[in-house]
Amino acid sequence: MNLHILKVGGKVIDDLALLQPILEAFLQKEGQKIIVHGGGKKASELSEKLGIPVQMVNGRRITDAAALEVATMVYAGLFNKQIVALLQSTGGNALGLSGADGNVILAHQRPVKEIDYGFVGDLDVVNAEAIHRLLSAEFIPVFCAITHNGQGQLLNTNADTIASSLATAMSALYNVKLYLCLDKNGVLSNAEDDNSVIPRINATDYARYKEEGVVYAGMLPKLDNAFDALAKGVKEVIICGPESVVKGGGTVIYAD
Amino acid sequence: MNLHILKVGGKVIDDLALLQPILEAFLQKEGQKIIVHGGGKKASELSEKLGIPVQMVNGRRITDAAALEVATMVYAGLFNKQIVALLQSTGGNALGLSGADGNVILAHQRPVKEIDYGFVGDLDVVNAEAIHRLLSAEFIPVFCAITHNGQGQLLNTNADTIASSLATAMSALYNVKLYLCLDKNGVLSNAEDDNSVIPRINATDYARYKEEGVVYAGMLPKLDNAFDALAKGVKEVIICGPESVVKGGGTVIYAD
Repeated sequence: MNLHILKVGGKVIDDLALLQPILEAFLQKEGQKIIVHGGGKKASELSEKLGIPVQMVNGRRITDAAALEVATMVYAGLFNKQIVALLQSTGGNALGLSGADGNVILAHQRPVKEIDYGFVGDLDVVNAEAIHRLLSAEFIPVFCAITHNGQGQLLNTNADTIASSLATAMSALYNVKLYLCLDKNGVLSNAEDDNSVIPRINATDYARYKEEGVVYAGMLPKLDNAFDALAKGVKEVIICGPESVVKGGGTVIYAD
Repeated sequence: MNLHILKVGGKVIDDLALLQPILEAFLQKEGQKIIVHGGGKKASELSEKLGIPVQMVNGRRITDAAALEVATMVYAGLFNKQIVALLQSTGGNALGLSGADGNVILAHQRPVKEIDYGFVGDLDVVNAEAIHRLLSAEFIPVFCAITHNGQGQLLNTNADTIASSLATAMSALYNVKLYLCLDKNGVLSNAEDDNSVIPRINATDYARYKEEGVVYAGMLPKLDNAFDALAKGVKEVIICGPESVVKGGGTVIYAD
């Protein structure tokens, strides 16, 4: 059976009017569905209003106890429930989940080496059987980027990592397609031209695009992660944007 | 089959060290379990820090859009996930729910008469079948006091009302016992003496206690609600406090 996993983040999370057509289009896909959402700007804005300093070390954000509270409130509370309510209003039986709910995702606090990241979780276990039972009960799981360590501690976790780990774990049971919804409508052959979406990329294409400098900067780790997911059993990764989720398109990353 | 429903609120919600032994003791009960939690002081504190005025009309709180965001963040986010993670750490397979998740509780926005309460929900439907399926799948549902109207709108809803509506709705399928965990360890025969817990009260006793002025003020609506729940099929309502959940005791309200 097909399982479609959509990761949404960035500006569409902050604007329900932008998010609604994306979710409605996604619900039309045949097969089971999972949604994973990131945080948008709201958590930073809330931290600022509360006078909680955003601590960065080497460009990485540190999650202290106060920052974890904010992340839990914004991701697991506000955004998760807004998305669930929106899906319910369009006929999708959404069920909001952190990793703690139903013990679906376990993580451990990132060990302190040069940097103490605080309450940041690195994933240990995606409970594919438990998630399969929820899907079989016709729920649409909606994951926020909060997990737990099984000992009562919530942990702030990267939403892209959750999405790709879900995709690889669920590949044991489903034909998984992972949709990464970014701001642009796919991988562009010309960064200046939003319409220059490359329709399909395999590993050979990717090597060539890297060599030619067509693909660079922030797109590299995303594509590396995409090929890693393919190597672990995911059928396709689709890099898309708000428009391409709704109208089709985007860049399909596929194994040779 | 027995179903135990525990409503916790007030100061234990603000202090996980107080809450943990209560939840551990509750998990020991034979049969299915549901937990409903209120909000504690955190939502008011957060509103204050954010400069969101707490609007009261005739002693009732008004939930405008900003207050609803705060309630959703604190109840559905912070407290709900902290309780779920705590239960998971003690071996309970908790699943946090707002009314929107799985469409389990539907409400409508309270109509504007003399007062516009804003985004406050009055309950319409408790989806007992859906909750029964979650219980049968061995989840411990943990409800926060946020519901939805099925059209995408989240609503702030009284946690006591959610608890008693769950209890009456689930009585069609289970022998339901409803535990209302307050600050005192039960209904006191002498307000000055915390050890003067009345062990059992039926309607006849209640009429007498009211006449004698033994029971008064804030306890009256709670007991009225308890007898109303009994009339609607709930087997027992137990008024208890943190200590009496753990050690046993409290006041059993029972039908004649």
